[in-house]
Amino acid sequence: MTANKRAPKATATEESLHRIFTIPEAPDSTLGRIEQEISQNLAGFLGDHIVAKDHLLTSIEKDFASSAIPEEPAYVSDHMHHLLDKLVAKSVHTSSPSFIGHMTSALPYFILPLSKLMVGLNQNLVKIETSKAFTPLERQVLGMMHRLVYQENDDFYQHWMHSADHSLGAFCSGGTVANITALWVARNNLLKADGNFKGVSQQGLFAALNHYQYNGLVVLVSNRGHYSLKKSADVLGIGRDSVIAIPTDENNRIDCTKLRAKCLELRQKNIAILSIVGVAGTTETGNVDPLEEMAGIAQEFNSHFHVDAAWGGATLLSNKHRNILKGVELADSVTIDAHKQMYVPMGAGLVVFKDPSCANSIAHHAEYILRKGSKDLGSHTLEGSRPGMAMLVYASLHVISRPGYELLINQSLEKAHYYAQLIEQHEDFELITKPELCLLTYRYNPKQVQLYLERCCENEQLAINQLLDQLTKFIQKRQRENGKSFVSRTRIEVSKYANRKTVVFRVVLANPLTTKAILNEVLQEQTELAQESISLLPQLFDKAISRL
Amino acid sequence: MTANKRAPKATATEESLHRIFTIPEAPDSTLGRIEQEISQNLAGFLGDHIVAKDHLLTSIEKDFASSAIPEEPAYVSDHMHHLLDKLVAKSVHTSSPSFIGHMTSALPYFILPLSKLMVGLNQNLVKIETSKAFTPLERQVLGMMHRLVYQENDDFYQHWMHSADHSLGAFCSGGTVANITALWVARNNLLKADGNFKGVSQQGLFAALNHYQYNGLVVLVSNRGHYSLKKSADVLGIGRDSVIAIPTDENNRIDCTKLRAKCLELRQKNIAILSIVGVAGTTETGNVDPLEEMAGIAQEFNSHFHVDAAWGGATLLSNKHRNILKGVELADSVTIDAHKQMYVPMGAGLVVFKDPSCANSIAHHAEYILRKGSKDLGSHTLEGSRPGMAMLVYASLHVISRPGYELLINQSLEKAHYYAQLIEQHEDFELITKPELCLLTYRYNPKQVQLYLERCCENEQLAINQLLDQLTKFIQKRQRENGKSFVSRTRIEVSKYANRKTVVFRVVLANPLTTKAILNEVLQEQTELAQESISLLPQLFDKAISRL
Repeated sequence: MTANKRAPKATATEESLHRIFTIPEAPDSTLGRIEQEISQNLAGFLGDHIVAKDHLLTSIEKDFASSAIPEEPAYVSDHMHHLLDKLVAKSVHTSSPSFIGHMTSALPYFILPLSKLMVGLNQNLVKIETSKAFTPLERQVLGMMHRLVYQENDDFYQHWMHSADHSLGAFCSGGTVANITALWVARNNLLKADGNFKGVSQQGLFAALNHYQYNGLVVLVSNRGHYSLKKSADVLGIGRDSVIAIPTDENNRIDCTKLRAKCLELRQKNIAILSIVGVAGTTETGNVDPLEEMAGIAQEFNSHFHVDAAWGGATLLSNKHRNILKGVELADSVTIDAHKQMYVPMGAGLVVFKDPSCANSIAHHAEYILRKGSKDLGSHTLEGSRPGMAMLVYASLHVISRPGYELLINQSLEKAHYYAQLIEQHEDFELITKPELCLLTYRYNPKQVQLYLERCCENEQLAINQLLDQLTKFIQKRQRENGKSFVSRTRIEVSKYANRKTVVFRVVLANPLTTKAILNEVLQEQTELAQESISLLPQLFDKAISRL
Repeated sequence: MTANKRAPKATATEESLHRIFTIPEAPDSTLGRIEQEISQNLAGFLGDHIVAKDHLLTSIEKDFASSAIPEEPAYVSDHMHHLLDKLVAKSVHTSSPSFIGHMTSALPYFILPLSKLMVGLNQNLVKIETSKAFTPLERQVLGMMHRLVYQENDDFYQHWMHSADHSLGAFCSGGTVANITALWVARNNLLKADGNFKGVSQQGLFAALNHYQYNGLVVLVSNRGHYSLKKSADVLGIGRDSVIAIPTDENNRIDCTKLRAKCLELRQKNIAILSIVGVAGTTETGNVDPLEEMAGIAQEFNSHFHVDAAWGGATLLSNKHRNILKGVELADSVTIDAHKQMYVPMGAGLVVFKDPSCANSIAHHAEYILRKGSKDLGSHTLEGSRPGMAMLVYASLHVISRPGYELLINQSLEKAHYYAQLIEQHEDFELITKPELCLLTYRYNPKQVQLYLERCCENEQLAINQLLDQLTKFIQKRQRENGKSFVSRTRIEVSKYANRKTVVFRVVLANPLTTKAILNEVLQEQTELAQESISLLPQLFDKAISRL
């Protein structure tokens, strides 16, 4: 740390520490200037300071190699230079309009000062004593999101929204915790107290399965389900193997015939279905399961029905498109991430419960906080201490409003359709999955190779697809390294190639600042990278092309 | 939403939305002015805007009663007025030097602009693709905290800190998630794959207990253990009943003789000890278990040893006092909350693991991220998407430095001892638990009543203690409502009153801005409130006093 090299050496004194807690950075200090830059022109600041070109991780690690906690304090200004140089410069420009590979986006401007207010207030939502008005505010946000999903009437919300003994949902740091919470609730409701048995919550899973005499416990989800569901099953003691992947159709939606057949089979084996999970916006392709049909099956088999709408849930804000999620209102619980398509910064997930009593199966109380009958939000959450992120969702819902969100969501979908069209019109690209939400996958695949793939034998198809996988990986990596734009990549089963797992580009078009011009540029860059690299591929590729 | 009342009505248009994402608030706008106020004088801003007097929760709820998502956008300035008036005014001044009831404190000033930078960068730590340099930074912070606890040498950290297949710890939103993570790791290591059994992670708890033929699975912790441990046991499928509370001595520390006796009993019953948990800073009294002795017992019974140092862990930064946690370096895992005594805002917890392979029992991978061999931090955490909070810990460690933290921690302890002395010198107060860390409990108890309690019969003692409980509750409530200062209250077993659960004031002295003068004022206010209320108590009290 640069401060160490300065003379005289810095030392921590009572006075210097007191200053740190009481005297703000002067506007003309380094940190003050950085803050002004961020306030006046965030995009400019990020553009100026984040070095576009990719750095090797191992070289970055050298700057973060010391495990010793400094024995000398750094001056704030020196440390800020250090952070700008070593951290900010080598971070990722997640809000760049050409960073279309993941679910991050530009943020509305008012979010920045509001976040600062949130940090300055430093409320702790675990209990009212450290959050006061933030508690009713969070309950209102949960009520609004509940209403967005379930559309109950005013009376319903008046009755339940602020009820001490109920909760319409749980706010949390993200979709994974939301999914764990939903399945935790489902598990505890399924294996509830009964006779002498005090419930899984008290006595655990071993006693629960012995009591109920089930031969097992499973979660059913399509093979496009998010990895957090397996993680949830692990955490909750059910085991990853108990998450049964049901095949999807050619549109990446769960095959309900197979789902129902599996349910019948499980019933015969006396295996309990802890939850059927619908996916509303698969992470990899953005498709939405047939939720209404799934709800019917869940009802038939008396199973909890959870919908993981971490990504797609915000679509409900669009009257035009909310139909894509038809049936979500039949779910017992729904996960939505506000930090995805609701344009709130990282750390804002939530789950809502259809039945306000549903989450009582995980309620807990303690002596010094969360006393029974209190309205402390901590009694129905997995996390304990939590910041006041709900304020950012609240403000966004008010400043952007429902029709504003609708415009944003409709725009994203239109953009995805436009990009899909670009790809389909380009003879050397192959659209792999069409956008249902604003997510799509594709790859570079020269026209001749596409034609050849249609007629060649299975072995040749396999060999060529392997080469194309290499090509996709190469292009994606180089594009990231060049730093102008970013698309992600994944591997998905493609029906037209005998369900072989195929490497594809994955694009998410949720950033309102992404323009059509940028999309054209991304494709142009990929074309150039492909041409540059095709010569590096083995002869087989040439052969495939020349044989035509 | 005041905007609704304005003419012309606001509507969301593509242009207005584009503006929200691209044009910052003008410095002279409401939000701009709020931000400047916060930047220039946070304490002044909070003092001006947070209304000291307590509001009835039910009256606040009226302002957060609408479940409808607004159909019209609010102007940012209108909405900010609304937030100031309805939310900020009725929030809790957690950084006030006289708010000494919970573990929140004033924050160093540089934290505010840094938080804004963090939000502006909006990195997602789940994977390198959305966090880049933040990933090595977080690994370094985990390395530093690991070293703070375990004091391994440079070689150790050079070898493990950035190893893709290992992790020295997990950063998370708070101590509860840290504790769940630690016990999850312990559970999965205890019930690991063995022969045909694929491990609890894959096959779940029912199969695991059948395979290992244990008659049960328990967590042992003192009866002062944090409620999050029972929550963890519930989540992890072990059941709350499996958290066995071991009695404490008169200093609120676990009785190791009883702990060992319980272990022997469990061994005879063939019940596996998933973890012995040491508490380093009980939430209610701030005492630290005899960690070294506990580590020995854990080793004898081959159990995971976890230390919940969410509150007290920062004491390790003080060379003078780190000895209080002697033995913590023998723990397999240790929870520390940076948002407690490390002066970082809400949302920064972590757990470190002695053995860098320990957390591999919870490792998970997915196709589009967290590929095997990647250094993505998301493969070893309970949460998925997470913000770059580690930057705030990193900056604090550098700017405050170890000796700076030492000063702060030593000051807190001195202040607690000073306050304890004040209480002991005041004849009408009774110190219930002495400060070991900067936390203590006491109550108002007039001298004559104290004397009477010593000599009266058991029934009378009980009756008077019940009255004193009422009195303590009354004073605490009134003090909170007055809004000048805040202490919390809890109920703890008091050995000198036959271990009866007794209501006490609870005070945490971690705010560097709390002065001795403030402490004198707090006690003075309590004395006045007590005298005001004593007349309201039934005659018994008078009788007790007059009988002397």
